[in-house]
Amino acid sequence: MTSHFRHVALIGKPDLAGVPPMLRELYAHLTRRGLAVSVERHSAGALPDAPARSLADLGENCDLAIVVGGDGTFLIAARELAPGKVPLIGVNLGRLGFLVDISREEALARLDDVLDGEYGSEERLLLSARVYRGGEILAEGLALNDVVIHRGGGASMVELITHIDGVFLNAQRADGLIVSTPTGSTAYALSGGGPILHPCLPAVVLVPINPHTLTNRPIVVDADSSVEITFRQSKTPHAQLSCDNQLLPPVGGEDRIVIGKAPVPVTVLHPAGHDFFEILRAKLNWSN
Amino acid sequence: MTSHFRHVALIGKPDLAGVPPMLRELYAHLTRRGLAVSVERHSAGALPDAPARSLADLGENCDLAIVVGGDGTFLIAARELAPGKVPLIGVNLGRLGFLVDISREEALARLDDVLDGEYGSEERLLLSARVYRGGEILAEGLALNDVVIHRGGGASMVELITHIDGVFLNAQRADGLIVSTPTGSTAYALSGGGPILHPCLPAVVLVPINPHTLTNRPIVVDADSSVEITFRQSKTPHAQLSCDNQLLPPVGGEDRIVIGKAPVPVTVLHPAGHDFFEILRAKLNWSN
Amino acid sequence: MTSHFRHVALIGKPDLAGVPPMLRELYAHLTRRGLAVSVERHSAGALPDAPARSLADLGENCDLAIVVGGDGTFLIAARELAPGKVPLIGVNLGRLGFLVDISREEALARLDDVLDGEYGSEERLLLSARVYRGGEILAEGLALNDVVIHRGGGASMVELITHIDGVFLNAQRADGLIVSTPTGSTAYALSGGGPILHPCLPAVVLVPINPHTLTNRPIVVDADSSVEITFRQSKTPHAQLSCDNQLLPPVGGEDRIVIGKAPVPVTVLHPAGHDFFEILRAKLNWSN
Amino acid sequence: MTSHFRHVALIGKPDLAGVPPMLRELYAHLTRRGLAVSVERHSAGALPDAPARSLADLGENCDLAIVVGGDGTFLIAARELAPGKVPLIGVNLGRLGFLVDISREEALARLDDVLDGEYGSEERLLLSARVYRGGEILAEGLALNDVVIHRGGGASMVELITHIDGVFLNAQRADGLIVSTPTGSTAYALSGGGPILHPCLPAVVLVPINPHTLTNRPIVVDADSSVEITFRQSKTPHAQLSCDNQLLPPVGGEDRIVIGKAPVPVTVLHPAGHDFFEILRAKLNWSN
Repeated sequence: MTSHFRHVALIGKPDLAGVPPMLRELYAHLTRRGLAVSVERHSAGALPDAPARSLADLGENCDLAIVVGGDGTFLIAARELAPGKVPLIGVNLGRLGFLVDISREEALARLDDVLDGEYGSEERLLLSARVYRGGEILAEGLALNDVVIHRGGGASMVELITHIDGVFLNAQRADGLIVSTPTGSTAYALSGGGPILHPCLPAVVLVPINPHTLTNRPIVVDADSSVEITFRQSKTPHAQLSCDNQLLPPVGGEDRIVIGKAPVPVTVLHPAGHDFFEILRAKLNWSN
Repeated sequence: MTSHFRHVALIGKPDLAGVPPMLRELYAHLTRRGLAVSVERHSAGALPDAPARSLADLGENCDLAIVVGGDGTFLIAARELAPGKVPLIGVNLGRLGFLVDISREEALARLDDVLDGEYGSEERLLLSARVYRGGEILAEGLALNDVVIHRGGGASMVELITHIDGVFLNAQRADGLIVSTPTGSTAYALSGGGPILHPCLPAVVLVPINPHTLTNRPIVVDADSSVEITFRQSKTPHAQLSCDNQLLPPVGGEDRIVIGKAPVPVTVLHPAGHDFFEILRAKLNWSN
Repeated sequence: MTSHFRHVALIGKPDLAGVPPMLRELYAHLTRRGLAVSVERHSAGALPDAPARSLADLGENCDLAIVVGGDGTFLIAARELAPGKVPLIGVNLGRLGFLVDISREEALARLDDVLDGEYGSEERLLLSARVYRGGEILAEGLALNDVVIHRGGGASMVELITHIDGVFLNAQRADGLIVSTPTGSTAYALSGGGPILHPCLPAVVLVPINPHTLTNRPIVVDADSSVEITFRQSKTPHAQLSCDNQLLPPVGGEDRIVIGKAPVPVTVLHPAGHDFFEILRAKLNWSN
Repeated sequence: MTSHFRHVALIGKPDLAGVPPMLRELYAHLTRRGLAVSVERHSAGALPDAPARSLADLGENCDLAIVVGGDGTFLIAARELAPGKVPLIGVNLGRLGFLVDISREEALARLDDVLDGEYGSEERLLLSARVYRGGEILAEGLALNDVVIHRGGGASMVELITHIDGVFLNAQRADGLIVSTPTGSTAYALSGGGPILHPCLPAVVLVPINPHTLTNRPIVVDADSSVEITFRQSKTPHAQLSCDNQLLPPVGGEDRIVIGKAPVPVTVLHPAGHDFFEILRAKLNWSN
C-alpha cells in the first residue's frame, strides 16, 4: 500500500540520550519506504544525510511530523507546525507521555501502520493568548496545553478579573489562573485541582491556583469562548504569563490578556488501536 | 404586544408557605393578559378556578410552565414536561436557585418581559438512565441534574466498572459515582469535587464519590457519550441508583446501567438580562 | 536472649487462602521457642493442637498477638484486645497494609527480632463512640480507624450539628461525617479529602463527607476533645453509624453521638527498622 | 480591680485610615487607667505624647501589646515581640481577622475586661526556619503562620526532598511546599488544600503546592518535629523562601532548610467569651 504522506519531518528532543539512534533508525526506515525526510536542525548532527530545517520550514514543507522525546518536545513542535497543518505523531523513549504515546520498541511497526493509512486523527484545540497594552498587542503566544497567569516571584497573591465573552465571571485573589485545553487538563491543571477533559471535548477549563476564596472552583466553558483576564489593582506590577510553560513578557497594571481558540487546531495522529483511557490509567496509576 | 404563549401551566412546590398566594397572583395576572392557565393538581387547592392537571397532562397541553418553589420542584417538573417540549421558567420565594432564578418581587415584571418575547432560551441536557438485567430493561429514569450510583446503606465501597462508548475507562472502588449534566454540576457533583460546567456546554462529568484511589478524578466527556456502569464483583448486592435524587430500584450483580443523552432536552427560559455568572457568584459567596 | 513474651495469640483472617499454612508455620516456630500459643477460634481448624479461644479470652490471657491477614482483620483484633492491653503485630500475605506491615517472606525473621526485644512500640489512639437516646446509652463502639455517621440509604443529605468540648462548631449538610484517628487518616478519611496524620499525633480529624457548603473543610482537633454530633432536623430518621466499618444501630432524631478517646490505646509493635513513611510511599505510589 | 499589666505597647498598621484615631482613643483610655503606654515608631505621628519605640524595644519593655489593623500587622508584631514573651491582643477596624478578633466598637470594653484579668491566654506555636549553606547559617526567620518554599519566578516545578526528624518522607515535584502552624492553617495552607488545625494543637502541617503526584497530600506531624527540605536537582537555581510572606534570600542547590519549633511561642490574649469556632464560621461563610 502506498502512503499519502510524502515528506516526513523528524524532530527530536535535543540532548536526550537515545534520540540520535532512534532518529537514525527512523530515517533509514522511512527512506527505504521511499519517503522524503527532513530533520529539525537541532538534531542535524544525528542525521548528516537529511536536510536540516527549522521548525517553521518543516511546517511549510512536510506533511507528517514524527516527534521523538517527551510531551514537552511535542508541545513545542505542535505549536510551530500548527499554522502549516502538519499532523504530528509522538514516540517516547521509555517514559510514556500523553502525546508521545508510541513506545520505542513498537515505533517502526506502529509508524508503518500510520504510513499504510491505519491511523486515527484527532484535532486538538490550540489556544491563542494575546496581551493588549494601551491598545497595542504587547505579546502573543500559542498553547496546546495551557495559558498560565501566575504571581511568579511576587510575594502576594494577584487579583484577577475574568470575563467570558465579555460577561463578568469573577474577581479572585489567587496565586494565578490556568486556562487549559483538554490536552493540558492532564498536566498542570490537574495538579491545580482541575478535572480531566476528554481530548476531543470542545472546551477549556479555568483552574484558579490556590484561590483565597475556597469556593472558586474550576469552571469548564465552551472552546469558542473568549476569556479575558485583567488585574484588579492596577498596581499589580509583574505577573507572569506563560504558554505551555514558555514565559512571555511580564504583565500587570492595565494589561488585558485575551485567550481564545487559535485559528487552526493541532492534528495529532495515533496508530490504530490507540486508547486514551489506557494512557490515563497508566499515567495515573489506576491499575491497582 | 401579543405573546406567542397561549396556555400557561402553574406548578408550585406543595406545602411551601408562600406558594398559594404567589400562584393566585400569577393566575390573576396571566388571565388578565388573556392567557389560558392550568394548575398542577397538587396545587389545585390554591386555584379553584383553574383547571387542575397532572404534570403529564400539562406537558401535552401547555406551551409554557411557570414553576414556583425551589430547584427541586423545577427538576421534577422539567423531567415530566420534557417530552412535550414545554419551556419552563422558575420563580423562587426568597432563596435564589440555579433554576428558579426570578425573585418573588420581580416575578410579574420579569414574566411580562417573557410573555412580550423578551427572553433568552436555553436547551439544557437531559440524561436518560436505563438499567438492563438479563437483556430486559429493569428500570429507567430521566435526570436534569444527575444520575447517581451509590453504595447506599452498604457498609463497604462499591466497585464500579465504567465504559465510555464501549471503551473501558476504569474500575474503581468508591462510595459511588455521579454522572452529572452541566445543570447538575453546581449541585451534588460540586460537593463531590467536580468542576462547574457552563450550563450550555455539551458535556457530562463523571465524579467518583470518595474514591479509594486518590487519582480517580472527575472526567468530563462529550454529552453524546454513552456511559455504561457495571459492578466488578457480581456479588455487590444492592447499590442505590437515583435520578435527580429520586430512587430507582436497587441495582447490583450483573446489572448494566446505561446513561446517555435523552431524546429531548429541557428548554429553560430566562428573562432578558439573565446572568448565570451572577447566580454563581451569589450562590458560592464569591462577592467577598 | 529470652523473650519477655510468654503467651502468644495467633489471629488469622478467616477464609483467606494462605492464612492456615502461615499460622501453622508460626505455631511451629513459636512453640519451638518455648512460647505458649493460643489460636483465635475461627482459625482453630488450621491449628488443632493449639487451644482455641475467643478474642476476648485471648485479650485476657495473652501478652502478644500476631495478626495474619489485612488491615481489616487487624482492626477487629485490636478493638477486642485493647482492654487487655495486649500488643499486636501484623503480618500480611502479599498486600502490604498500614497495620499488617510485615511481609510473609520476612515474617519469621522479623518476629524473632520482636521476641528478642528488637522492636518499637506505638500507642495508637482508640476512639469510643456512644449513642445517647433519652438519657440512656443506646449503643457504643470502639474504633481504631474511624467513627462514621452517614446518610446510608437515605436519598438526601443529613444535617449534622457538631460540638467540640461543648462548644458549637458548625451545622452542616453533607453525606456524613468521619471522625478519624491518625491510624484511620490513611483509610476512608483520605478518600474523603482529609489530611494524613502521623500515627502518633495526639489528634483526631473531622472530615465532612461531600458537604453542601464547600468551605466545610477537614478540621484537626486534640485527641482529648469530646466530639458531640446531633441532628439538625429532629426528623432525620435513620442515619448510619459505624465504627471501623461495623454498623451500629441506626441513629437520628434526638440522638446524641459522643465520640472521644477510649480509656486505653492500642499498642502496636513494629520490628526494628519499621518506617511509616516507607509504607506511605508504597501505598500512595509516591515512588514515581 | 487593678491590672497586672503596667506598660502597654500600641502597634498600628501604618497608613491604614482609622488607625490613628483608634490609637488615640486607646492611648487616652489606657493612660486614664494609669498605665504606661508606648507606641510603635511607625505610628508615632498619631501619638506625639507617647514614647515611640521600635518593635524590638517594645518587646523588651512592655508587658502587653495591642495591635490595631489586620492579621498581617499582628504577624509582624508577634514575631518581633516573641523573644520578650510579650502577650498580644488584636483589634480590627472592620474586617474580622483570625488574630485581630476584637471589633473597633467593642475595643474599649473588651480591653477593659482584659486589663481587669478577664481573658484567656493561648500559646501559639512559632516556627523557626534556618537555611544552611556549606555548613553556615545563610539566613533565618520566624513564622507564626507559615514557612513557604516556592518556585517563585521559575517556570518549572521544584523538586523537594523532605525529611522529618532525619527520616526520609518523600521527594516531590511541585510549585512548592507550605509548612504551616495551626495559626497559619486558615491562611495560605487552606488555599493549598490543607486542613484546619485547632489553634492550640501541638502540630504542624506540610501542604504541597500543586504537586505533580496527586497523592502527595497534606501531612500533619508533631510540632516538635524537625522538618528538613533539600532540593533534588542540585541545579534548582533560585527557589523562594518566605516566613509569613516575608522573603528571605533565594535558596536552591545544596542548601538545607531546617524548620522547627522556635524557642518561645507567641502568647495571644483573648477577652473572655472568645470563640475560635465563631470566627471560623464567620470567615468561611458557614452561617448559611
